[in-house]
Amino acid sequence: MAKEKKLVEAITSMEADFAQWYTDVVKKAELIDYSSVKGCMIIKPAGYAIWENIQKELDARFKETGVENVYMPLFIPESLLQVEKDHVEGFAPEVAWVTHGGLNPLQERLCVRPTSETLFCDFYKNLIQSYRDLPKNYNQWCSVVRWEKETRPFLRSREFLWQEGHTAHATAEEAEERTVLMLNVYADFCQQVLAMPVIRGRKTEKEKFAGAEATYTIEALMHDGKALQSGTSHNFGDGFAKAFGIQYTDKDNTLKYVHQTSWGMTTRLIGAIIMVHGDDSGLVLPPRIAPTQVMVIPIMQHKEGVLEKAGKVKERLSKVCRAKLDDSDKSPGWKFSEQEMRGIPVRVELGPKDIEKNQCVLVRRDTREKTVVSLDEIDTAVPKLLEQIQNDMFERAKAHRDAHIWDAHNYDEFKEIAESKPGFIRGMWCEDQACEDKIKEETGATSRCMPFHDQEQIAGTCVCCGKPARKLVYWGKAY
Amino acid sequence: MAKEKKLVEAITSMEADFAQWYTDVVKKAELIDYSSVKGCMIIKPAGYAIWENIQKELDARFKETGVENVYMPLFIPESLLQVEKDHVEGFAPEVAWVTHGGLNPLQERLCVRPTSETLFCDFYKNLIQSYRDLPKNYNQWCSVVRWEKETRPFLRSREFLWQEGHTAHATAEEAEERTVLMLNVYADFCQQVLAMPVIRGRKTEKEKFAGAEATYTIEALMHDGKALQSGTSHNFGDGFAKAFGIQYTDKDNTLKYVHQTSWGMTTRLIGAIIMVHGDDSGLVLPPRIAPTQVMVIPIMQHKEGVLEKAGKVKERLSKVCRAKLDDSDKSPGWKFSEQEMRGIPVRVELGPKDIEKNQCVLVRRDTREKTVVSLDEIDTAVPKLLEQIQNDMFERAKAHRDAHIWDAHNYDEFKEIAESKPGFIRGMWCEDQACEDKIKEETGATSRCMPFHDQEQIAGTCVCCGKPARKLVYWGKAY
Ligand SMILES: [Zn+2]
Ligand SMILES: [Zn+2]
Repeated sequence: MAKEKKLVEAITSMEADFAQWYTDVVKKAELIDYSSVKGCMIIKPAGYAIWENIQKELDARFKETGVENVYMPLFIPESLLQVEKDHVEGFAPEVAWVTHGGLNPLQERLCVRPTSETLFCDFYKNLIQSYRDLPKNYNQWCSVVRWEKETRPFLRSREFLWQEGHTAHATAEEAEERTVLMLNVYADFCQQVLAMPVIRGRKTEKEKFAGAEATYTIEALMHDGKALQSGTSHNFGDGFAKAFGIQYTDKDNTLKYVHQTSWGMTTRLIGAIIMVHGDDSGLVLPPRIAPTQVMVIPIMQHKEGVLEKAGKVKERLSKVCRAKLDDSDKSPGWKFSEQEMRGIPVRVELGPKDIEKNQCVLVRRDTREKTVVSLDEIDTAVPKLLEQIQNDMFERAKAHRDAHIWDAHNYDEFKEIAESKPGFIRGMWCEDQACEDKIKEETGATSRCMPFHDQEQIAGTCVCCGKPARKLVYWGKAY
Repeated sequence: MAKEKKLVEAITSMEADFAQWYTDVVKKAELIDYSSVKGCMIIKPAGYAIWENIQKELDARFKETGVENVYMPLFIPESLLQVEKDHVEGFAPEVAWVTHGGLNPLQERLCVRPTSETLFCDFYKNLIQSYRDLPKNYNQWCSVVRWEKETRPFLRSREFLWQEGHTAHATAEEAEERTVLMLNVYADFCQQVLAMPVIRGRKTEKEKFAGAEATYTIEALMHDGKALQSGTSHNFGDGFAKAFGIQYTDKDNTLKYVHQTSWGMTTRLIGAIIMVHGDDSGLVLPPRIAPTQVMVIPIMQHKEGVLEKAGKVKERLSKVCRAKLDDSDKSPGWKFSEQEMRGIPVRVELGPKDIEKNQCVLVRRDTREKTVVSLDEIDTAVPKLLEQIQNDMFERAKAHRDAHIWDAHNYDEFKEIAESKPGFIRGMWCEDQACEDKIKEETGATSRCMPFHDQEQIAGTCVCCGKPARKLVYWGKAY
């Protein structure tokens, strides 16, 4: 029983130490394991199954917008990385370098891709000749490497999984349209599937992607009041096209540069799911992303007919949702703890007395609420309950988020909020990077985004310097 | 029109130059492009869509046998790679080495995984404690790197995509069962989905995987008579377990070593599909793996009602198969050539006269046979035709394979066949590696496998040295 005990041992409470709680959950819900490669994690079956569901959902949404998948090389020659000036400055300090192939030193160093803009540009340069070749809406699912110093499972690791979309368009308008379209795909996915409310907006110059003209972002609020950038979409304008010489012959027979975008989401999202929905008993998965949505747990399973009936209930549920039966020889108590730790949205309890009454007990993971339902109705009751949980989880996360947005009208207010109130701080900004730098240095809060859907002018002056304000910014401490 | 022309230009005929024909097909069917990274290819949408279908089919079959997916790090510390002696000898000469992370040299070199046995062993060592933790049936989908000198698209490249399954079992029997099970999953997949007949058998000591006790393989015959190893399944016994110290406490409370297996399939399979089924007009895809199964091509599409009717036909077909409509402004002739080059199994031709008669023309890609069917019947006629094509393609490939298996009873016969008759050579073997080496050196043929399902003793003596024979071997020149 040593193994079981390890799983259901109490974890650190969120209140006591949020960071330790997070680490406990990723380990005890068996999402990851540490590897002998410093800063690289092993994603275990329970964690990878969540990623598979994320991939499936996102990939279908991408394809609906005309995206096609490709696979690009893992390596980037040093000279290729250096073609776009801002880009190489942004990434060169944190890449891993391959210097030897087999027994021989390489003539040119190769970096392990930290992102693939340069490879796509090199590819598009030859692929795109005419306006007939546009647009190109390509995406790849792969792993990337960034040599981070401090690492945390899912949130920041030297290798992580992601998708990176790279598109090329005839006009600036089309590129802008695609940049916004993909940000909305991300936002809808987070809200509808992960039950995670997000704020859509634009990054400041300081925070934008290396080489981009504009970076759009979705920002979510974690349970501890810190922000997490959950997806970004970049409009490159024709900057990369000019650096790489990606031109096409337009209908009017003149040569023009293409306009490009890129956009990505990563295994960070799993960290976000944990920190938005989790509680002191472990993971709480939104039903739409949960690999197992319902766990059937027999009570007094040694009694005649119990296991058999539980098996039948599981079979019936499998036709309407992702159901499993825990028929192991552990006690019901252990099984409950395991199911809770793993965040399975609904538990079905079924014992001899229930069977006698032709009923079972449904227990919600998110609220622990119990309802007794007739076995004749489970095919409709369980899917309905899963929908209810999905909606309630979103509303709860949204209420928590909205209760943690604070307005700062001047720098004293800003500093006080930053110190005492976890969450987003809304504050006006003069657009001078000096203020952004000062705020970060003195309060630890960074500019998260200039929101699209919140144009309220809460003051006339910059929250930091008092000069005339130009933009409303959401600030926050962030992962 | 420059772009179109490029696509449908004649390709080299198979007869004239098989290698050039292959290269032409991968390029002109737009499966791959070359990248600026020597030996690494770009898999384009048409190629990647085939890989996605391979993944989907294989992954479902794996999961039916209880396999779970995980993700392991991309890097292996040099010391970890060295733990198992045979394994490091097999792989160290052909791995890529990372020596710098960011701006700093690493304390220990990391190799980019050529395969992940060592990482899985390191993981299992801690994960597996008790007999209750067994079996572990884990798999990952990823890319691997082997620093090959000569490369060819899909067949041999410095980076390729694959899946690698790694399992751990309580007993030798269970490990053997899993090894055979996965070989059979591979064989069934090749035969049922890729319409590609395979020979199942065991590799000789010389040809087995570095560190394995036994390697099982499926071998397919390409159109030019060369063999292609299409999937392998390895039984490691307890060799890796002893090297890494992977022990569990059994029910009887004693410590025992686990028994392990690994098994993999790669993007090579796309090369096999091309070389088994392709013809002088390009790719020919088996319907079950074809990303697009049916292309609807309107004739005289400028005539009123034609495009609209073609759109409706495509809509109806989309409910029963993967159908597309080519409504571009290219001529029908171009469209036919494109559809043929890309290997789309069925073309539906539909012009004003067909519409008048409430009919359309179905054209098979594999035989070019045309049939006229009533538009009222396409929902049943097209899926039936796709099934027919799938079956016929398998039977045709099998007949070709069977017509290219030759028996050699002595060395003179062997040499003559190897020189003049492309295909597999069946020949008895004394089990001495010297004979295997000599055959390879003098004829270019390698031992492909000792077949499971062909125990015929075609001679009493080794085909090479004349000493008493022990095993029937399939020999052949191979990719
Ligand atoms: Zn200011
Ligand atoms: Zn011999």
